[in-house]
Amino acid sequence: MAGTVEQKLSALGIELHDPRAPAANYVGFVRTGNLLIVSGQVCYSPDGKLIAKGKLGAGVSVEQGVAAARGCAVNILAQVKLALGDLDKVARVVRLGGFVNSAPDFFEGPKVLNGASDLMVAAFGEKGRHARTTVGVASLPSDAAVEVDAMFEVS
Amino acid sequence: MAGTVEQKLSALGIELHDPRAPAANYVGFVRTGNLLIVSGQVCYSPDGKLIAKGKLGAGVSVEQGVAAARGCAVNILAQVKLALGDLDKVARVVRLGGFVNSAPDFFEGPKVLNGASDLMVAAFGEKGRHARTTVGVASLPSDAAVEVDAMFEVS
Amino acid sequence: MAGTVEQKLSALGIELHDPRAPAANYVGFVRTGNLLIVSGQVCYSPDGKLIAKGKLGAGVSVEQGVAAARGCAVNILAQVKLALGDLDKVARVVRLGGFVNSAPDFFEGPKVLNGASDLMVAAFGEKGRHARTTVGVASLPSDAAVEVDAMFEVS
Repeated sequence: MAGTVEQKLSALGIELHDPRAPAANYVGFVRTGNLLIVSGQVCYSPDGKLIAKGKLGAGVSVEQGVAAARGCAVNILAQVKLALGDLDKVARVVRLGGFVNSAPDFFEGPKVLNGASDLMVAAFGEKGRHARTTVGVASLPSDAAVEVDAMFEVS
Repeated sequence: MAGTVEQKLSALGIELHDPRAPAANYVGFVRTGNLLIVSGQVCYSPDGKLIAKGKLGAGVSVEQGVAAARGCAVNILAQVKLALGDLDKVARVVRLGGFVNSAPDFFEGPKVLNGASDLMVAAFGEKGRHARTTVGVASLPSDAAVEVDAMFEVS
Repeated sequence: MAGTVEQKLSALGIELHDPRAPAANYVGFVRTGNLLIVSGQVCYSPDGKLIAKGKLGAGVSVEQGVAAARGCAVNILAQVKLALGDLDKVARVVRLGGFVNSAPDFFEGPKVLNGASDLMVAAFGEKGRHARTTVGVASLPSDAAVEVDAMFEVS
């Protein structure tokens, strides 16, 4: 039976799929003590396509970036589910690291990252409010528009 | 009464102001166990203006970047004060993450970040010596010249 | 007597040298609780030369980038040895943060970072499998091609 957090996600139309394992010598997450560290997730949708491809400020709109950041957050939650079995075991979303594929004159990364932040709060309520760092990067894997990594406190 | 660390800052002419809360679903800091994670702070001065705007290597000098990095560090310390009430509760500055808004041919990010590192050691002494990662990014929020985030061990 | 992990590295032809202390107010690593945080290491070889200089996608090949990332990982392990005395005290490689000096149209950062990830698994086996975040940055210190930082769980 799905826990409370997954029920909230379902109500938003979000189902979590098992993430594909990374095709290299790293993994999607590592738990150390009560911390769960999640690898950078790019904005793939469950069908394996990028939600937004290219640079903000050079072809990708803020609105598309927000959707991409939300997609990164969904992929993060899929890793957390795989790690913990149940998202209700999350005690706190500690931190999101947001990387926006940016033209040199794009300055609205925080608006883009709100797509990820808002999903965390929609899923976890007050426990979803997190520290955050947002920067604009020169490029991202596969030319994804957004990549987000995360740290959680788990019980 | 201000603690020892704040007295040192006062002697340097630095007063910490309550940071404005982020205008979105994230927060300035999260504590988990004995770790305090501080969100990325851009180089705003207390009057709400950027200390340096634009790119290092394309209009912003190293000296201006140093002042900006120092301003980021002040903003980090304001978050720590809000979190802990007293900077003397910091057991160790664990890590700074430094992001310098850089032209592709600007390679002196570490000199810039010293503005933040030096302030940490001025405030905390040996406990202020930290691990650090410095990179040059394509853009930063509001075209700030520098952004720094941080991790502290607290008692 | 060298521990098991160092023996594996020796068999790969890798000897760890004492890293030079940073020439500023930061340090190569900080331990907090069971976490060891290692500063960003650029791709210097033990003779003080960059293994690869410049940008991926603009002069530096993926193969050169892989060698550079491996060199960053060697430098990380040298810091860990200095911190712990013995690499066998590593309980888990928790996370690598990979920063690839990238042209705006270079999208193969993950292939580059495998140079670091593969070395961690060669050294530590299953304990070497880590969470990872890879991004392409606008510039790096000294125009290094790759910089990697790390978090370890230590016993």
